[in-house]
Amino acid sequence: MAHIKLDTDTLTRFCRDAFCRFGFSEEDSSVITDNLLMADIYGIESHGVQRLQRYHKSIQNGKILLDAKPEVVFETPLSAVIDGHNGMGQPIGHMAMRMAIGKAKKSGMAIVTVRNSNHYGIAGYYAKMACDEGLIGLSFTNSEAIMVPTFGKKAMIGSNPIAISMPAEPYPFFFDASTTVVTRGKLELYNKAEKPLPEGWALDEKGVPSKDAPRILANINQRAGGGIMPLGGSEEMTGSHKGYGYGMLCEIFTSILSLGKTSNNTRINGLCHGFIAIDPAMFGDPGEIEKHLSAFLQEIRESPKAEGHDRIYTHGEKAALAIERAKEEGVPVDVKTVIEMKDMADYLKMDFESYFGDLGIDFNTGYQASF
Amino acid sequence: MAHIKLDTDTLTRFCRDAFCRFGFSEEDSSVITDNLLMADIYGIESHGVQRLQRYHKSIQNGKILLDAKPEVVFETPLSAVIDGHNGMGQPIGHMAMRMAIGKAKKSGMAIVTVRNSNHYGIAGYYAKMACDEGLIGLSFTNSEAIMVPTFGKKAMIGSNPIAISMPAEPYPFFFDASTTVVTRGKLELYNKAEKPLPEGWALDEKGVPSKDAPRILANINQRAGGGIMPLGGSEEMTGSHKGYGYGMLCEIFTSILSLGKTSNNTRINGLCHGFIAIDPAMFGDPGEIEKHLSAFLQEIRESPKAEGHDRIYTHGEKAALAIERAKEEGVPVDVKTVIEMKDMADYLKMDFESYFGDLGIDFNTGYQASF
Repeated sequence: MAHIKLDTDTLTRFCRDAFCRFGFSEEDSSVITDNLLMADIYGIESHGVQRLQRYHKSIQNGKILLDAKPEVVFETPLSAVIDGHNGMGQPIGHMAMRMAIGKAKKSGMAIVTVRNSNHYGIAGYYAKMACDEGLIGLSFTNSEAIMVPTFGKKAMIGSNPIAISMPAEPYPFFFDASTTVVTRGKLELYNKAEKPLPEGWALDEKGVPSKDAPRILANINQRAGGGIMPLGGSEEMTGSHKGYGYGMLCEIFTSILSLGKTSNNTRINGLCHGFIAIDPAMFGDPGEIEKHLSAFLQEIRESPKAEGHDRIYTHGEKAALAIERAKEEGVPVDVKTVIEMKDMADYLKMDFESYFGDLGIDFNTGYQASF
Repeated sequence: MAHIKLDTDTLTRFCRDAFCRFGFSEEDSSVITDNLLMADIYGIESHGVQRLQRYHKSIQNGKILLDAKPEVVFETPLSAVIDGHNGMGQPIGHMAMRMAIGKAKKSGMAIVTVRNSNHYGIAGYYAKMACDEGLIGLSFTNSEAIMVPTFGKKAMIGSNPIAISMPAEPYPFFFDASTTVVTRGKLELYNKAEKPLPEGWALDEKGVPSKDAPRILANINQRAGGGIMPLGGSEEMTGSHKGYGYGMLCEIFTSILSLGKTSNNTRINGLCHGFIAIDPAMFGDPGEIEKHLSAFLQEIRESPKAEGHDRIYTHGEKAALAIERAKEEGVPVDVKTVIEMKDMADYLKMDFESYFGDLGIDFNTGYQASF
């Protein structure tokens, strides 16, 4: 698939304007846009602007309710449960993490859970919100079931990412990963490239390991059984029960503690999230704690490299490099996604070319002059 | 290796008496014993009474200080940092989790971290303490570095287990697992059986995957490089960076938030732990939340099974079954461990036979009549 680089500021302006035209407030439009752009910049393309079309569809078919107002249904000084009433995931998530941050700044830490939400973008966005304010942030979301539990053949748990971020120098610790071995987006990339799936990724409708990408994806689409393995594969010997356990940990901090729908019951809607903010000052001098983490990360980066490798990354390092790159070079966007963006612009009566100029793409055929 | 079943109550009495003779208080001796027995009962033999000899040695060589009094060095209503002053891990861990539980019952949740401790047994023991009181419990510990970070060849992170337990019916959710793909104990079992290691477990001194158990273990003992892979193996394709990330998450809640020694700096002593207790009542009716989790666990257990499998376990189910079995049949203990126990009894001037009767073992040769 061919990508073209779009200027970050222009892409941001385009997305904000589009969400405003859908009917979101300026603030909500900014939150949604920032979340999508962060995914693209960090290289998590599956959660970036390529999602625009799916959001567009979900708004059109009423899965995402434009005028939903998230409601706090339970609250203590250290916690809250929010009912998203099927609104857009990002503004709900943003509100929930803001609550957690506010409570943590007052009391030391807080947990806010959310039920009846929609796809909230990348989990790390919310963890980073807390980190940006000097706190430790954790963020969790369940999702439509795609993880097959150890010894099962039906997906019962979502890709259920866990994200954590904490201040450190020269860049924050930032970890954001699904508890499945990979996400569906990776399967789709292999399918498009007509390559067999690597071992240890997917299970067919009988619960047997399979490398057959088209079959696995068709099964997932038709809910015919099978799905993606937990981190650690499908056998206890490789730690399948551990990835499955982390998926459950995520489920506890999302659907269980919000009394919302578990991953296996979210076909139509009703996703759940969880947000934790912790003030390091609860454990001593925050500056000293940050230095301690920074020193450990540096020791890891400087430790001896495996044969054939010349660099050890700590979590958040690639993200920091990607931000620099995006500032200089813009954000790489798949041509197919650009065409979808043009369609959406037409639907919203926005002048696509006034944002991006002539990209050299024939929008009738998808042909790009410079291929 | 041959095992014999020892009566649970007798084994408990023997261990308690032994720790009292070492000089621990009755309460501390009970805590240490309960932790060890729980490991054996749950089938985590590496953390059970086979550890007695190592504790014995560590007490003798001054790594574990008998008369150390754990000291609270920082405290808020929701948190504390404890300096273990190199005392025995279990009593320190027990005190820390008791503090977390007390604070959580008062305020809703709490985190207590510990530095300068020793091996604290199985992480799940402390998570279960909170669960037994109707709370969600999490427990973390770092350990001497054995996990090689992705693209590295030197162990920098411990086996760094994460445990979580939460009330559910018919048995609690209970998850306790190292963030490495396996623990060193598993490597030792393959080594004793003279079997090659499975793929995706270990790295040699060059950071290259290896199945050579004797070499890997010799390298670990001599700190010659290499070690065990994170959950997810050694490549990003199989999720290596995720297991490495969970190892880091554990490190944050142990050494970083206690300003203690990180895993790569704990060769002599100074392990760190972390304990979190959360009251589900912060999110609604605890009974309703417990029912919600129980129903989800039941849905998973009842979901369709993979070809060749007739049962899906949820975390904590095997533990519950093991407890029943231990009550009826006793605890399986390796004959080699029984011989070490006899040695320890002699050292402590305890009459081994008055506890266990004649086990049919010739303690001079290790020969058991019934083999």
